[in-house]
Amino acid sequence: MQKLIVKFRDARDWKQFHNPKDLALSLTLEAAEVLEHFQWKSKEEIEEYVVTRKYKIAEELADVFYWILLMSHDLKIDLPEALKEKMKENENKYPVEKAKGSHKKYTEL
Amino acid sequence: MQKLIVKFRDARDWKQFHNPKDLALSLTLEAAEVLEHFQWKSKEEIEEYVVTRKYKIAEELADVFYWILLMSHDLKIDLPEALKEKMKENENKYPVEKAKGSHKKYTEL
Amino acid sequence: MQKLIVKFRDARDWKQFHNPKDLALSLTLEAAEVLEHFQWKSKEEIEEYVVTRKYKIAEELADVFYWILLMSHDLKIDLPEALKEKMKENENKYPVEKAKGSHKKYTEL
Amino acid sequence: MQKLIVKFRDARDWKQFHNPKDLALSLTLEAAEVLEHFQWKSKEEIEEYVVTRKYKIAEELADVFYWILLMSHDLKIDLPEALKEKMKENENKYPVEKAKGSHKKYTEL
Repeated sequence: MQKLIVKFRDARDWKQFHNPKDLALSLTLEAAEVLEHFQWKSKEEIEEYVVTRKYKIAEELADVFYWILLMSHDLKIDLPEALKEKMKENENKYPVEKAKGSHKKYTEL
Repeated sequence: MQKLIVKFRDARDWKQFHNPKDLALSLTLEAAEVLEHFQWKSKEEIEEYVVTRKYKIAEELADVFYWILLMSHDLKIDLPEALKEKMKENENKYPVEKAKGSHKKYTEL
Repeated sequence: MQKLIVKFRDARDWKQFHNPKDLALSLTLEAAEVLEHFQWKSKEEIEEYVVTRKYKIAEELADVFYWILLMSHDLKIDLPEALKEKMKENENKYPVEKAKGSHKKYTEL
Repeated sequence: MQKLIVKFRDARDWKQFHNPKDLALSLTLEAAEVLEHFQWKSKEEIEEYVVTRKYKIAEELADVFYWILLMSHDLKIDLPEALKEKMKENENKYPVEKAKGSHKKYTEL
């Protein structure tokens, strides 16, 4: 996946624009586009929307995926490895017996 | 990866909070945390930072990855497939001959 | 208000960091902090929260206000005037007879 | 200003959608739209852009202003007062002698 993206980018000579600040900025903008789909909608409307417009949300999630893959590539970050590490940390921050059924932040558990 | 995350979530009985709006909201907040690392920093400072604090940025990217995996799972979206589709679309929106060396949006090319 | 903020900034010699990109980035991060207060919370929880933690939300809104005042100052934008203009535009985009009771975007009305 | 906005909103019967979570969400989306203007642009491009497209940026800042005014109204927050309070706090967090010429967060000063 990452190779495909980097190839796409390099064919367009876009590396020159891809400094980390603008990559992070782009990532944030795409995340906001995911969020926009849920603006003003009630639970019921959302339930319907995620079925009928699933492909739209999929597109936005793909955009977010694109930027984290590209950023990981440029910064030489092993993203699956980073997630594994993070999950271990989350296990410690949110032990089942404390966190079960609560949406509190670990700092307030 | 997705299985690991869903298992983590379900062990904590957090599915009840994970409606799509709050998932998208969480995704946006984590993207903002990636962005925060680059706030106020000059190009030179960032070049150093992405080396010395690579693990910090990796953690935040992992958080973003976490939410798009979880959201994809809940909405039954095939994320790699969605990205492949999106890349095809990007190929059309940004043909090499037009987009090369330009950071314009496809609507302005 | 704006004078107070600019004086605060200049006393700290921070103008050097305040390029428009980083100002906009800071504004986005502060908006995300407002949003974070509502993450995972149900309607009922929010109703209580906005009363008991009103001062916390007020602080975050003040941060957003700070950045738009500072950015307006630096870019020589008359913010109240800009809002008046925008409201006129909104009147046209969302005529009462069409928009009443609907949360659709003007492009879909 | 606030009265004008609330009147606009109520004429359209939109109060029903304006729960605090969606207001905060909207605020974040508008802040992201401000940010989008600076995506991929170099310092030089931005210097030109903030002059030639000042009215565009003014529009987006006005949108952000709109949402914090509306949110303050609904939550009964005195926004100018909140900013004054925040500035006092900032004076304490960032004393001139420590913060001068530094872009460090107060926690790292």
